[in-house]
Amino acid sequence: MTLAMSIVTNQLKQLTPLSVPDRLLLGPGPCNAHPTVLQAMSTTPLGHLDPAFLQIMDEIQSLLRYVWQTDNPHTIAVSGTGSAAMEATIANSVEPGDVMLIGVAGYFGNRLVDMAGRYGADVRSISKPWGQNFTLDELRAAMAEHRPKILGLVHAETSTGCRQPIEGVGELCREYDCLLLLDTVTSLGGVPIHLDKWGVDLAYSCSQKGLGCAPGASPFTMSPRAMAKLLARPTKVPNWYLDMLLLGKYWGAERVYHHTAPINLYYGLREALRLVSEEGIDNSWARHQANVEYLWSSLESIGLKMHVEKQYRLPTLTTVCIPDGVDGKAVAKQLLTEHNIEVGGGLGELAGKVWRVGLMGYNSRPESVDRLIGALKQVI
Amino acid sequence: MTLAMSIVTNQLKQLTPLSVPDRLLLGPGPCNAHPTVLQAMSTTPLGHLDPAFLQIMDEIQSLLRYVWQTDNPHTIAVSGTGSAAMEATIANSVEPGDVMLIGVAGYFGNRLVDMAGRYGADVRSISKPWGQNFTLDELRAAMAEHRPKILGLVHAETSTGCRQPIEGVGELCREYDCLLLLDTVTSLGGVPIHLDKWGVDLAYSCSQKGLGCAPGASPFTMSPRAMAKLLARPTKVPNWYLDMLLLGKYWGAERVYHHTAPINLYYGLREALRLVSEEGIDNSWARHQANVEYLWSSLESIGLKMHVEKQYRLPTLTTVCIPDGVDGKAVAKQLLTEHNIEVGGGLGELAGKVWRVGLMGYNSRPESVDRLIGALKQVI
Repeated sequence: MTLAMSIVTNQLKQLTPLSVPDRLLLGPGPCNAHPTVLQAMSTTPLGHLDPAFLQIMDEIQSLLRYVWQTDNPHTIAVSGTGSAAMEATIANSVEPGDVMLIGVAGYFGNRLVDMAGRYGADVRSISKPWGQNFTLDELRAAMAEHRPKILGLVHAETSTGCRQPIEGVGELCREYDCLLLLDTVTSLGGVPIHLDKWGVDLAYSCSQKGLGCAPGASPFTMSPRAMAKLLARPTKVPNWYLDMLLLGKYWGAERVYHHTAPINLYYGLREALRLVSEEGIDNSWARHQANVEYLWSSLESIGLKMHVEKQYRLPTLTTVCIPDGVDGKAVAKQLLTEHNIEVGGGLGELAGKVWRVGLMGYNSRPESVDRLIGALKQVI
Repeated sequence: MTLAMSIVTNQLKQLTPLSVPDRLLLGPGPCNAHPTVLQAMSTTPLGHLDPAFLQIMDEIQSLLRYVWQTDNPHTIAVSGTGSAAMEATIANSVEPGDVMLIGVAGYFGNRLVDMAGRYGADVRSISKPWGQNFTLDELRAAMAEHRPKILGLVHAETSTGCRQPIEGVGELCREYDCLLLLDTVTSLGGVPIHLDKWGVDLAYSCSQKGLGCAPGASPFTMSPRAMAKLLARPTKVPNWYLDMLLLGKYWGAERVYHHTAPINLYYGLREALRLVSEEGIDNSWARHQANVEYLWSSLESIGLKMHVEKQYRLPTLTTVCIPDGVDGKAVAKQLLTEHNIEVGGGLGELAGKVWRVGLMGYNSRPESVDRLIGALKQVI
């Protein structure tokens, strides 16, 4: 009888109730979630097929379409973080042997390459130094050379703070009968996006940046063109959890059980989307732009320089050059431990060269800038 | 200039702040999360590489080992729901062409079959009527016939309320040099489990049942035997988000960024594990058993019968036979709308034949039983 077996206690820990420091999160994400969002997340769960919960799912779908500026019927929140939603775009669009062309100008371009390879894509990539982007002419030349079935671009490179202009790319993809896949993890809510006008076919994002929610329930959308490719594939999607044919039956009219949704995160996401919608998505974009310009001028006033050319800088995330002779890691650590402010370090080509400073969602406020600048003055 | 493009508002909704009914969740899950867990989830997020957060991850790992009764170094929480953790066991153990033998006696056995096929396994299955389980002799005969590399069993079938005895199966798997994979979604925290003594190599669970947390951060563990198979595979795991070689670098000593963890859910899971640990895992098992026996006797006292033979009934989830002439769906709907009590309906072979009543985690209390019985007396 199993109950009679002795209990092993070597892994048991005596813990006190949760207590965490109150940080101002000005790194590449997560940002501090809006207090209303946090409050909603402590609401008692509903069942995942409760009519009251299905209504919340409908509200999330509709407001995700609004903030993304799309009418795609298949617009949902994936029950995982932004990386899961990223993988969902690949898993549902790539068939083994498909040529996928990926623009790599930072860490997340490389992640797309890794993921697409795992799903059997014939991956081709074009690259730019970290902090730059691709011109439409460069993309046109690469399309002519590789003739891909899917083009993957990162709208807002979280590793570099650089914005990739998308105007004209959708038309280019239609010319070549190619799907356009766009990473909007660090842009949704904070950087102007017009998915339908741009002709984007697959996009994903996260909850914990421009939307001001906690991480874990991640926006995903696919156009009817992308859905047609999915419906025509001869084999099952090689990922059960992210299979949009199954998920579509849960999020759509059929309401067929797929998995138990992370109910409380959906509460938070619904509230975050409600707050952005009340502000107006264009007002949210304008707020992010105004506050980041205040950040840039404030950083310049204390002698710091930005890594990315001004017109392509993201309003959500700024890469700040670490001055010669300054130990970037030590500064970031001091900001954290002495001032409770988190900033990010550089990745890849930018490791040791930049700090990454996010002003996203709830944290995109002049007060965030003032607190950071005050601390930097003491630390550098 | 993108900011000048007009905003489409057809998907915009004017919503009031979140307000949801306060249900008693006595279905197959989620259960109501413990108030302390919900409170923790509204704590402001930390960064996913903040030392204070890394400590919380360590605490989660250690307490997951305790509640599972394992010393597996690779024991983590997957950033998704229980189905994601399920897929993680398959993605990291199955190589294309591997024979995987799966015991199917309910919905979740079938889900394992579906998933394993997507990862290229040569799937063999044995089946039993829904509500029964496999004897050790039946498993031995199937092992001799199919010689699998992985045997997959469901410890607690959420669709039937039946418990699969595991004693002796680990030895059998070692005899055949086979990994043992066990679904403990509806057993962890509520049903005795001794992973190491049983010789289980891969297991997964969820947060929202026996542990009394909200859904979304899901226990996963693999033994050194399973890790050895993973390390020897010639190709990448065909799932980036669930690749345990990458995740091991984030959860282990290296702390290499993989994805942004669902911070607030980990807060909740840490608190849920702390509460179970304070109670003692064996006391939690005993509580679930005592309360479900009270449920069974109470149901019998109003003339209802259970579907599963008593010795194999789960302490966490009970399938209750719908009496002849009673409309099961109408009863469940009335319980929900008139009494704010959720119970589940039957799936597959048991559709229309049973209700599924969960007494899990925070909800495994005599008061839950009393409230349900009181409502059933009015409704049936």
